[in-house]
Amino acid sequence: MVDLIEAAAAVGRSVRVGVIGAGNMGADHANTLRRFVRGAEVVAVADVDRARAAAAASGARAYTDAHALIDDPDVDAVVIASHDSVHAEQVVAAVRAGKAVLCEKPLAPTLAEGRQVLRDIGDDGEALLSLGFMRRFDQGYVALRQAIDDGTVGAPVLIHNISRGVSGAPNATSEFSVTGSSIHEFDVVPWLLRSPVVEVAWIAPRCSSQVHAGLQDPQLIHLRTADGVLSTCETFLNARYGYDVRCEVVGETGAMSLAEPARVRLDAELRHGIGYAADWRPRFADAYRIELQAWVDAVASGAPTPLATARDGLAASAVAEAVIASMHADGRTTKVAL
Amino acid sequence: MVDLIEAAAAVGRSVRVGVIGAGNMGADHANTLRRFVRGAEVVAVADVDRARAAAAASGARAYTDAHALIDDPDVDAVVIASHDSVHAEQVVAAVRAGKAVLCEKPLAPTLAEGRQVLRDIGDDGEALLSLGFMRRFDQGYVALRQAIDDGTVGAPVLIHNISRGVSGAPNATSEFSVTGSSIHEFDVVPWLLRSPVVEVAWIAPRCSSQVHAGLQDPQLIHLRTADGVLSTCETFLNARYGYDVRCEVVGETGAMSLAEPARVRLDAELRHGIGYAADWRPRFADAYRIELQAWVDAVASGAPTPLATARDGLAASAVAEAVIASMHADGRTTKVAL
Amino acid sequence: MVDLIEAAAAVGRSVRVGVIGAGNMGADHANTLRRFVRGAEVVAVADVDRARAAAAASGARAYTDAHALIDDPDVDAVVIASHDSVHAEQVVAAVRAGKAVLCEKPLAPTLAEGRQVLRDIGDDGEALLSLGFMRRFDQGYVALRQAIDDGTVGAPVLIHNISRGVSGAPNATSEFSVTGSSIHEFDVVPWLLRSPVVEVAWIAPRCSSQVHAGLQDPQLIHLRTADGVLSTCETFLNARYGYDVRCEVVGETGAMSLAEPARVRLDAELRHGIGYAADWRPRFADAYRIELQAWVDAVASGAPTPLATARDGLAASAVAEAVIASMHADGRTTKVAL
Amino acid sequence: MVDLIEAAAAVGRSVRVGVIGAGNMGADHANTLRRFVRGAEVVAVADVDRARAAAAASGARAYTDAHALIDDPDVDAVVIASHDSVHAEQVVAAVRAGKAVLCEKPLAPTLAEGRQVLRDIGDDGEALLSLGFMRRFDQGYVALRQAIDDGTVGAPVLIHNISRGVSGAPNATSEFSVTGSSIHEFDVVPWLLRSPVVEVAWIAPRCSSQVHAGLQDPQLIHLRTADGVLSTCETFLNARYGYDVRCEVVGETGAMSLAEPARVRLDAELRHGIGYAADWRPRFADAYRIELQAWVDAVASGAPTPLATARDGLAASAVAEAVIASMHADGRTTKVAL
Repeated sequence: MVDLIEAAAAVGRSVRVGVIGAGNMGADHANTLRRFVRGAEVVAVADVDRARAAAAASGARAYTDAHALIDDPDVDAVVIASHDSVHAEQVVAAVRAGKAVLCEKPLAPTLAEGRQVLRDIGDDGEALLSLGFMRRFDQGYVALRQAIDDGTVGAPVLIHNISRGVSGAPNATSEFSVTGSSIHEFDVVPWLLRSPVVEVAWIAPRCSSQVHAGLQDPQLIHLRTADGVLSTCETFLNARYGYDVRCEVVGETGAMSLAEPARVRLDAELRHGIGYAADWRPRFADAYRIELQAWVDAVASGAPTPLATARDGLAASAVAEAVIASMHADGRTTKVAL
Repeated sequence: MVDLIEAAAAVGRSVRVGVIGAGNMGADHANTLRRFVRGAEVVAVADVDRARAAAAASGARAYTDAHALIDDPDVDAVVIASHDSVHAEQVVAAVRAGKAVLCEKPLAPTLAEGRQVLRDIGDDGEALLSLGFMRRFDQGYVALRQAIDDGTVGAPVLIHNISRGVSGAPNATSEFSVTGSSIHEFDVVPWLLRSPVVEVAWIAPRCSSQVHAGLQDPQLIHLRTADGVLSTCETFLNARYGYDVRCEVVGETGAMSLAEPARVRLDAELRHGIGYAADWRPRFADAYRIELQAWVDAVASGAPTPLATARDGLAASAVAEAVIASMHADGRTTKVAL
Repeated sequence: MVDLIEAAAAVGRSVRVGVIGAGNMGADHANTLRRFVRGAEVVAVADVDRARAAAAASGARAYTDAHALIDDPDVDAVVIASHDSVHAEQVVAAVRAGKAVLCEKPLAPTLAEGRQVLRDIGDDGEALLSLGFMRRFDQGYVALRQAIDDGTVGAPVLIHNISRGVSGAPNATSEFSVTGSSIHEFDVVPWLLRSPVVEVAWIAPRCSSQVHAGLQDPQLIHLRTADGVLSTCETFLNARYGYDVRCEVVGETGAMSLAEPARVRLDAELRHGIGYAADWRPRFADAYRIELQAWVDAVASGAPTPLATARDGLAASAVAEAVIASMHADGRTTKVAL
Repeated sequence: MVDLIEAAAAVGRSVRVGVIGAGNMGADHANTLRRFVRGAEVVAVADVDRARAAAAASGARAYTDAHALIDDPDVDAVVIASHDSVHAEQVVAAVRAGKAVLCEKPLAPTLAEGRQVLRDIGDDGEALLSLGFMRRFDQGYVALRQAIDDGTVGAPVLIHNISRGVSGAPNATSEFSVTGSSIHEFDVVPWLLRSPVVEVAWIAPRCSSQVHAGLQDPQLIHLRTADGVLSTCETFLNARYGYDVRCEVVGETGAMSLAEPARVRLDAELRHGIGYAADWRPRFADAYRIELQAWVDAVASGAPTPLATARDGLAASAVAEAVIASMHADGRTTKVAL
């Protein structure tokens, strides 16, 4: 594949991308690639729903079978934004077909399955695989990481993460809150600190009466990285008031946090303030754009991916598994199986 | 009177205050004096409405005749919070009776009448008179003034003032907007800069369609102080969204402004923010308390008033008169008759 | 004593206050009482350092012996702001002398000693005793509590508290961080929620390299109240950057938090922002004033204290004891002995 | 040229862009086009300084003669970021050569010269010309305009603009402050309101002592649009503290303003706050990217430009001319010659 890509780059040809999954996320990716990412061409979209695939394809080829897209010789690189349950098999197929792959998290439903994916694709295949932890490309998180490196607040001692949404999926379980939402913190915390998570604990605040049975919401999770720093992660899927992601890094001489992203301030009806996004897509739209550009640039040039790797994804899944173990053991402090 | 006060101070006796006017302002003052100002006792309240006077008196004497209160030998000091139209005569009567007086602005409806008050009470009487420009005791304005003195932002070049309310009085005229509202800026700007206003201009933005005939709202006023600094004053009585007073001092090396006063931040319904007061009373409640304490302390000790003086009030009225002249002359730049 | 106070109230006489301890806190209290609290007179100050006592007394009687102040028949009520180690015996002496007492926290070094104080003074004596948990009078906390009662953010599920200072006492231990600083959260959380703390856990973030041996700093503490709400409390005595107290109440439909207290915003040197206090005294100066006024009003009228009671103080000490037990047991979740 | 472009679009070929001027602005544009704008290829850069041209060209052709670049048959479209004094002639040459042109403001040094450019290029040529008023693509301004259209704050009555920089060019004159800086407001105000500026006035605050002779700094400018709305524009080239652009739209029922752009908040050294950019480039980097993408998209598709047109540029220049006339006539209110 690298040969193909290099050839394309040499003749100035775009990376020809196929997008699997034409739900909100896949359609957004196709649109962003088409409008704002240089060096990419969306040549195919696959979705089990043909109409949805066609709409997202916007004139490019529409498939109902992901594997047909993967096997399309005009597809250089694949974005996997399909249902979580099929990520693993699609990743394996695409990598085996020699395609560069950007797979939305999670790589696989469980850590064991994720490990199996890596065994299936081998080391060479692993180099083709990137994972979509877009917060690494959010300019706020990037600035926090740079400032940590610069010593702006001294050595970190504590990180406070908060992730709140308007309403979770109707069938979300307590475990899904961990693997589907908190997993972003499990990736971003070690990335910020450049230190792996080694130990976790799960704590249940009072559960909101507004959520269905089977879901503890909010949840509080503690992460201990190898450097000794403690990170707290509050995840509240049904916080109602807005989509609100916060991160504060407390260091030995100061503290810094993500600024609330807002373009305008409004004075109306006895209130002064800013608005929240209703979900993560507008909040991280710019991060997705920058991530996709970075991915396409790396694919085109044959450079190693600057995105989260498969190993990063496994590390986050290992943390999630330890957190769920803690959840099922009354919040006992639990080691991460690295 | 000074003898009386000194005698009171010597025996540790409170200053016995009579409050004229039991509308919102007068009732607030009586309540603040009674609950939060040390060294004061509210011994009488006067209002043309006996029930209102009695309610505000809360057990103290209630008068319907302001002059009976003024003549009450148990009253050492008088707060005048009656209708603007009777301030002048009540001030003269109270000062002639040897009472210390705190008169809410304005001292008199016109500059000429204000000057007449000063002639009527003479220099000795003037020492008994304080005017209620409470912004001088707001901790934000006090901090701005201190920072100007400290050179925190370098020498001032420009001040931007904004004063917006929810809704003006139903019969407010364009002239009233100047004499009843902008006059606070006419006092606070020269107090901040320690330099008198020498020249003004009046400018009409587009008038809100939500106001009645006879009122230009908002208005924009320019003040030039003797030091050359330009101050802009936007006054918008019917801004609808909240009571919002702002002041920004722009200096040669930096700028500083009043922080929005707020005790809590609220996240609700896709908004993050703080609340506005519906009118000036909660916004300046603390300033009123500190002003009343400063007044009572000065009355008790016989010290010169730390409040705005009658001269300060005349200066503000002279500015208002010049602004109204500019309003009636198409916004022509107009000198202040000092 | 109630007779005395009622008599004083009847003749309009001030509550005659004696202040024990003329360090920063005691001197501040004496000054606040003297300048801003109506109905109080500072008649005596005691300090082991005579010069300090005399300076704080400002003309009133200066004692070096706290018990002489307590026994002074001209003293109606006593503020205890002496060294923590002598609070208990001074409280007992003052209450036995029939004086109303406002004792700065802590009532006693240990929970057992605190309980002994209550046994020593009996139920009648208990009615004379108030504890100085001033956050209950901070207008931000008051607004949060009112908003909880009003259901502004729905039923609370989680409270996040942060308390950071510039630098702790040079000899502060990990235990002192709990009993001397976090204890404010142990009082304010059950007061906000109207529900007692029943269970706690103590967690150590990475310790700042800038602190001396024997002190874990920062610390993270979890409180579980009887209503099931979880409260997190970060205490960081040596956070360096400023004195910063935060409280966020997360409810089922929204969240709200203390607004940063600031009077001005400054633009200078490529930064926009507000300033922090260097310690708690300016941050809570207004809360102290309101607390002292509320105390004096209650003493004067014979009403039950609106301040924290001795029972509230014992409850906070019981939480502290459980937290320290957790600290010494590797962070084990620990029940509070109520 | 449209044929060329359409042909390129048909074969999916990129728009081949030549950049004239390799100073900060031109080099930024070349870099942005090369890294973040899809559908564009930088094929040539021209600068009088060959080394600078070569550096910005990054492998593409480097010219020292702008006209050689314009005449290069491989150049489809030209970005003019050269010295202001040569914009006019380069625009005429490029348009006559059938190239699409994006010219940084100003089109010409004077309104008369700008008009001459339009006569020289004719109506057909005018369709090839876009002007670089990037604020129209800043997401904050875009949100303000959308909100005005949506009636979020009711009909506008007043707009307050503030534009402050760290330090102006060493040879900046009072007139340059108008034509080089305030001109952005002269474009953005009528664009926000969809109403032309018809009348202006110029006012001098106290001049900063930190600026050289020949420059009044800050300046205050009033714009009256045909809809009656008044807009104030403070321009302060040497405000020292940071690059700070503000815009507040005051409507009949509310107000809204640009939020301070910031990605992180910092707590350090007794301050809480955000940082300012040192100049306009980081502040508007995203606006430039979006503007360039919109321009390239329109060039590629043959659609009318969504950027400011030559007519918009002339309108802004006419306002500038009126403002300078007011400056030279003691601030007299001056009609704009449309």
